[in-house]
Amino acid sequence: MKTILVVGGGAAGATAASRAKKVCPSCRVVLVEAGGYITHAPCAIPYAIAGLSEEALWLYQEESFEVERGVEVYTKTKVVDIAGGRAKLEGRLAGLLDFDVVIVATGARPWVPQVEGLDKKGVVVLRGVDSVEEARSLLRGAARVVVVGAGYIGVEMADVLNAMGKKVVLIDVGPFPMSKVLDPDIGKLVASYMESRGVELRMGERIERITGGDRVEYVVTDGGRYPADAVILATGVRPNVELAVKAGARIGPTGAISVNKYMEAGPPGVYVAGDVAESIHKVTGEPVWIPLATYANKMGYVAGTNAGLGARVAEFHPVAGASVTKFDEMYIGAVGLTEAEARRKGMPVESYVVKTHDKARYMRELRDVTLKAVISRGRLIGVQAVGLTQSISGYIDLASQFIGRPVEELFNAEYTYMPFTAPVWHPLAVVGRLWLRHHYRSNGPPAP
Amino acid sequence: MKTILVVGGGAAGATAASRAKKVCPSCRVVLVEAGGYITHAPCAIPYAIAGLSEEALWLYQEESFEVERGVEVYTKTKVVDIAGGRAKLEGRLAGLLDFDVVIVATGARPWVPQVEGLDKKGVVVLRGVDSVEEARSLLRGAARVVVVGAGYIGVEMADVLNAMGKKVVLIDVGPFPMSKVLDPDIGKLVASYMESRGVELRMGERIERITGGDRVEYVVTDGGRYPADAVILATGVRPNVELAVKAGARIGPTGAISVNKYMEAGPPGVYVAGDVAESIHKVTGEPVWIPLATYANKMGYVAGTNAGLGARVAEFHPVAGASVTKFDEMYIGAVGLTEAEARRKGMPVESYVVKTHDKARYMRELRDVTLKAVISRGRLIGVQAVGLTQSISGYIDLASQFIGRPVEELFNAEYTYMPFTAPVWHPLAVVGRLWLRHHYRSNGPPAP
Repeated sequence: MKTILVVGGGAAGATAASRAKKVCPSCRVVLVEAGGYITHAPCAIPYAIAGLSEEALWLYQEESFEVERGVEVYTKTKVVDIAGGRAKLEGRLAGLLDFDVVIVATGARPWVPQVEGLDKKGVVVLRGVDSVEEARSLLRGAARVVVVGAGYIGVEMADVLNAMGKKVVLIDVGPFPMSKVLDPDIGKLVASYMESRGVELRMGERIERITGGDRVEYVVTDGGRYPADAVILATGVRPNVELAVKAGARIGPTGAISVNKYMEAGPPGVYVAGDVAESIHKVTGEPVWIPLATYANKMGYVAGTNAGLGARVAEFHPVAGASVTKFDEMYIGAVGLTEAEARRKGMPVESYVVKTHDKARYMRELRDVTLKAVISRGRLIGVQAVGLTQSISGYIDLASQFIGRPVEELFNAEYTYMPFTAPVWHPLAVVGRLWLRHHYRSNGPPAP
Repeated sequence: MKTILVVGGGAAGATAASRAKKVCPSCRVVLVEAGGYITHAPCAIPYAIAGLSEEALWLYQEESFEVERGVEVYTKTKVVDIAGGRAKLEGRLAGLLDFDVVIVATGARPWVPQVEGLDKKGVVVLRGVDSVEEARSLLRGAARVVVVGAGYIGVEMADVLNAMGKKVVLIDVGPFPMSKVLDPDIGKLVASYMESRGVELRMGERIERITGGDRVEYVVTDGGRYPADAVILATGVRPNVELAVKAGARIGPTGAISVNKYMEAGPPGVYVAGDVAESIHKVTGEPVWIPLATYANKMGYVAGTNAGLGARVAEFHPVAGASVTKFDEMYIGAVGLTEAEARRKGMPVESYVVKTHDKARYMRELRDVTLKAVISRGRLIGVQAVGLTQSISGYIDLASQFIGRPVEELFNAEYTYMPFTAPVWHPLAVVGRLWLRHHYRSNGPPAP
């Protein structure tokens, strides 16, 4: 009987295990997870803390997973060593396990700047399911909360804390929130909206230490000192590459594990999937490390399928980092490269910023939408969009399909329209129109 | 000086005129419109009747159009004859006008079944701007309204009337609302939602006459008799082909005017654009007549550009009928062929119905989403989606990009995800996954 060991019970590992068993019912599939839960969804953490999610649903029960999927599941089990088709386990399942195939889905762990005072009461690192209860009890009495890190999770935490009535200070070394995926012209819209909703932004500041007695009292940066009853650290994550390396995988240029499109990591029978793995960028063709839940699920699906069948059947394709988040009523989305990023890479770049609405212009309750398109050599390479409308997420899904393609396709494409849902010229169609207007065709007169 | 005559001041004509002047500032551009308004938006009519739109905005002022765009505009002016570069005009601008190029954008007119009683007080045909005031005054005292025709406009009228507190009966010869763009399995979801909101549906019934004295009292069908204080007829439209034919254009198999992708209608210098023109279907390659505002705008843009430059610069591409509407909180969208339509054409068809949610499954306030994908020979040929969420319109925009492409691209595509905006597997990704699961690849083992 073929034994497939899956290490890590997050999105990638749980999907891979379930999938491997499905395509290979005769296989023994063993899923081990170091923590206490499987299929935990880190994206849910801010909303779980705020009570906006149904607890019972965002955690999958180990038992039902076993019964429904036919996978052996062991939580609180750690793989301490792996080599030559044998894993050394500790915890609930201890001892040696021989396997034919391993799928390493060890995910990522929070990265925290090593400053003084991290150990004080009132400081939480968002770290998974367990940190939800910790954060909740901590926040119950906290009036002033400092959030460090203004990436997706930091912005979402600022959102839920602000909605809970806390006084929120958001600190980041970058010049504005989400500066990795937004250009300054779009980022400043996010910043001013957050400030208008009462969040105090301290951008371009680096945390130096956390002071106080037993409990936190102040967060000190190179730019100021902020009183805090609680501190949330959302300063990013790093891939848990150690086990994959022991299994013979190679660390790529991004620091995550290098895999091919079948999620194979090199040595026969070793697959790597999820936040621990690199992918290939659709625009640059270079390895990138973008730990997103959608990729983790799909990578797990691909790895599980190929591992179960013992064949190269499923593929994970290049990515462009399509992502979206929200703060209060503002939705913020991006895909592909920012203008700044493309310039740093030495690409020729032009960009268009389209200001329009989410509805026909004659409708009441119009919401403004700002969409920025980044173009290089006549191809769309990035889109950023913000607005007080959920339509933003649809724009980014749609823009993802045009990344790498000629800009005029944005004009030629078909878009739905009715007064409640869209302007008659979709913002992406406007980008195509603007671009055509400004360019000459090689074979004739000025383009339209 | 080159003179460009544009006939029809709707979306296509106004855009064409504005565009022609822009690319050819030395041209004389004359826009004539038989009615009293230009750039009127028929899509706005239900919402204008309900007071949900800003009147000042959905009608463009003739004067500002002239001043801002440099186009000569004559409303209440009819072209009664056209031949050999000369038009005979009546109305505000009367006499003969010599032109070098004509763009015919005469649009469509309501089609109404010729039954007895149409002339009674209380019966309105939705016909443009003027019918808004007529409908409003009529509806003021009306408690029971019968809407005839359950296409987009009929459903939207039923929506606004229902929201205004009227007792609404909706009658259509088709088996369920929007039966031209929905299959029965999706159409029945729309029907039961409308009924749950208090609309009385009388589907599969044909209107026979309208009875009463001076005023309407009953609408009589082959299935019943319905008391009515007012009757709204939304029974479809027909293209206004007459003038284009006089100008030398040809009527195509759909009954609308046949054009090429440059919006040329055959005779030199004759362009036809908007609701009066056919387009080519992306799936079948056949001519179709789908009068949508987005097409009209784009066709006008293309015709105006090419006419102004006197060159084949801009193109109008094949279409798939992407459209969306709403009733109360339900959004309803479709693109491409229905399963029924594809079967009637003798195509091999399979379909998948995906039931999922608009958010991560652990979030509160989840809304159900049902998406049906129609597939032929491994390619996506149609999508229908309904749900109590505006995400539906984004799904259809996105699906439009996949029409005609291999279904596995739905699996490989990238989608945004965050708990508030999407489930971690986008419904279109689920379609790709289901399809792959059920199909073997020609070159290997079962697909994932």
